[in-house]
Amino acid sequence: MANSASGDSVVDRVVRVVGAFPEGVTVLQLSDLAARAQLPLTTAHRLVRQLAAHGLLELGEGGSVRLGLRLWELVIRSSPTLALREAAVPFMEDIQQVLHQNVNLAVLEGWEALFVERLSRRKSVANRAQVAGRMPVHVSSAGLALMAGQPPAVQADYLRQFRDPAGKLGPDDVRSLLEETADQGFAQLAGVVDPNTWGIAVQVRDARKRTVAALGVVVPLFEMRFQSLLPPLQTAARGIMRQLQNANEAGPFYSTASSL
Amino acid sequence: MANSASGDSVVDRVVRVVGAFPEGVTVLQLSDLAARAQLPLTTAHRLVRQLAAHGLLELGEGGSVRLGLRLWELVIRSSPTLALREAAVPFMEDIQQVLHQNVNLAVLEGWEALFVERLSRRKSVANRAQVAGRMPVHVSSAGLALMAGQPPAVQADYLRQFRDPAGKLGPDDVRSLLEETADQGFAQLAGVVDPNTWGIAVQVRDARKRTVAALGVVVPLFEMRFQSLLPPLQTAARGIMRQLQNANEAGPFYSTASSL
Repeated sequence: MANSASGDSVVDRVVRVVGAFPEGVTVLQLSDLAARAQLPLTTAHRLVRQLAAHGLLELGEGGSVRLGLRLWELVIRSSPTLALREAAVPFMEDIQQVLHQNVNLAVLEGWEALFVERLSRRKSVANRAQVAGRMPVHVSSAGLALMAGQPPAVQADYLRQFRDPAGKLGPDDVRSLLEETADQGFAQLAGVVDPNTWGIAVQVRDARKRTVAALGVVVPLFEMRFQSLLPPLQTAARGIMRQLQNANEAGPFYSTASSL
Repeated sequence: MANSASGDSVVDRVVRVVGAFPEGVTVLQLSDLAARAQLPLTTAHRLVRQLAAHGLLELGEGGSVRLGLRLWELVIRSSPTLALREAAVPFMEDIQQVLHQNVNLAVLEGWEALFVERLSRRKSVANRAQVAGRMPVHVSSAGLALMAGQPPAVQADYLRQFRDPAGKLGPDDVRSLLEETADQGFAQLAGVVDPNTWGIAVQVRDARKRTVAALGVVVPLFEMRFQSLLPPLQTAARGIMRQLQNANEAGPFYSTASSL
């Protein structure tokens, strides 16, 4: 049975191997993978072969390793963000067609905004929000919209641990930003991540009025047409809410939830 | 160490748990998950808790389990299809803008076309090719384009094991379809999967002339404007090839490749 100490650590090692790929890196040499997973080369080799036999990893020429198409397929087809993205994408396409700007959709994961969908246009402004990319709550309009929609206890936990790596903002500054976001019903940030862009995001709620996502656009600073951007975003957010309520699912739940 | 029989089977069980979600199903009850993974409930429960502690699964209310946002993030950001999709999506957007039809991108996985990207328009015809969906080679234009581009030995292996579940086609029929596809330089199929649609797909090759993907559109049968669909697809496929050659990566390699 697997409830031995050895069994437990195999799961840990599998997780470390699968999680060893840095963002945007699709191929690692086995030796590099072993080092990143903090495993002896022989252990890493054996685990990689076992996982590759199931298609969760793939082995290439010269000891290169990548995540397997089979793993990709499993995760995509039963994605935890599937219901949300299916509800949101048509409305995101509408916004993109109307505003001709990058549109993104984020959820709260840990204390960061995790971008789960993004529609970009080649001519539109650079948008740092890559799909499956993360941004700290306090420097992204999506992050502020998400956090401002959390219960007070969650916001308090967030503010308690808050440290600005840039050393510019304190917890009280972020509290003010969150209060402003809650009062306005949307979040906006100009030029924090990129001095030439401006971001705005609104909350998407589920049937139980929980903020499950943030829908936002990023535009060039000189095109800060506030009056023309907010109404379509708010309209689309309402459409997404309605779709989510019609769907059988209650929307994504949080990774902190655990009642098993 | 993990090279015991018990260690091996933990990897197997982890794979069975993660792979237990059927296509399009994002949430399973723990008891259902255990049954699908062919594990005793207690074993499944323990594994689920271990994987949830790492964010690879998420536990919801009342014993519900879904794939974790963390797993989704890992797979998306280091996706085995990343380089291919990044090269292809701008060209797929061009095609969608010009033709106003569903555009899809597939790779060969096992003996099936695995759709790794799809751009759809709400007004365009139904397209059975969901992202991360699969279609048998012989009923999809993408599948035929992919298989017709494989080395003769791979095609022979494919034809040797070929059985048509519908009982309509024999290996010789499929061989003819593949030869026709290779001669023409593209694949087309009318009304096989859906009697009201027509599909056409061209091959995307990497720097070593290997067929790494198929680019296709699905249109209503009555809009079978052959002359207007093929040139943009061929042009886009060439653009994708050039992008792939410029990228550092040689494109996706096959899950059958194993030299470790």
